[in-house]
Amino acid sequence: MQYIAPLANLIEHFRALPGIGQKTAVRLAYHVLDMDPAQARALASAIIDAKEKIGYCNTCFNLSDQNPCAICASDERDHSVICVVEQPQDVAAMERMRDYQGVYHVLHGALSPLEGIGPSDIRIKELLGRLQDDTVKEVIMATNPNVEGEATTMYIAKLLKPLGIKVTRIAHGLPIGGDLEYADEVTLAKAMENRREI
Amino acid sequence: MQYIAPLANLIEHFRALPGIGQKTAVRLAYHVLDMDPAQARALASAIIDAKEKIGYCNTCFNLSDQNPCAICASDERDHSVICVVEQPQDVAAMERMRDYQGVYHVLHGALSPLEGIGPSDIRIKELLGRLQDDTVKEVIMATNPNVEGEATTMYIAKLLKPLGIKVTRIAHGLPIGGDLEYADEVTLAKAMENRREI
Ligand SMILES: [Zn+2]
Ligand SMILES: [Zn+2]
Repeated sequence: MQYIAPLANLIEHFRALPGIGQKTAVRLAYHVLDMDPAQARALASAIIDAKEKIGYCNTCFNLSDQNPCAICASDERDHSVICVVEQPQDVAAMERMRDYQGVYHVLHGALSPLEGIGPSDIRIKELLGRLQDDTVKEVIMATNPNVEGEATTMYIAKLLKPLGIKVTRIAHGLPIGGDLEYADEVTLAKAMENRREI
Repeated sequence: MQYIAPLANLIEHFRALPGIGQKTAVRLAYHVLDMDPAQARALASAIIDAKEKIGYCNTCFNLSDQNPCAICASDERDHSVICVVEQPQDVAAMERMRDYQGVYHVLHGALSPLEGIGPSDIRIKELLGRLQDDTVKEVIMATNPNVEGEATTMYIAKLLKPLGIKVTRIAHGLPIGGDLEYADEVTLAKAMENRREI
């Protein structure tokens, strides 16, 4: 009797979102009931649209609503430099910085023996595929500054050395243990400037 | 370039929800992109369903997916006692307590001269309409324990006195300045038990 079914269902769905507790879920659900019907439909459509229209770029594996993505397809980007990150969110963080002119490669994870994530579980093979011609001169490793990120960077650096490609790592201006996604633009810009060859 | 359009749109919609900041909105949006398509559709449907299926009970003005609502329609509730609250959330809080066997009336607000909310802006007329026959013997005022809630209770008590109906107020076991919605069950049960005639 506490909540009628459609409300209980909505609360449950909000509750399933990351970082949303019971109180917040209840507050959000009542807010939805208070919205104009058009607003509520727009919210629902935004969810459906995002799922339907966004996929992965077949080149860099960033999220995109076109294929190749706008960055991979752009003539204004430097295709001789690839910045390798763990997650699409990290590309967004790099783009906020506005300094970087190269392209990206999203691994979708980092090596983690503890969690059973090996080289074939992330997009390393696809990165190697992009290095088959002579276009790429430098690969900038921008994995997260933690154990898994470091291991991933060292693993990829070892694979790439024999190919004669310069492999650099963005400087540890990033707060150790933090997420690249949440680094501020100044820290990120500094980290890029101080990148060094591995 | 930072976020592609459907993602930016979804972030903006989450950002418009109460208590959701930019970082949380971004996190939620990426989470949606990570969901199974079926999960995302279920979330969108839960929003639409809640809007479409839930309206107000024409008797008590609580949220309901039927009319009259399950409480107003129930033979097991005591229809001679009406508990008057400000918001549908308050009914949910009262029902969590499980002690209360009467019915409700939801005002949808409280009197607030400062915000320009007068007697005709909340469901007072509809409450009076329910007191025309001799069914109702007691009206329990359970507005929020703040200035607006008190003013509303006193206003309604004055209106009801001449009708010969007992008007009580739930005890101030509620933390002053707090929201009835977030009161714990024990506090609420105590407050009900200590209610007194106004
Ligand atoms: Zn791409
Ligand atoms: Zn009702």
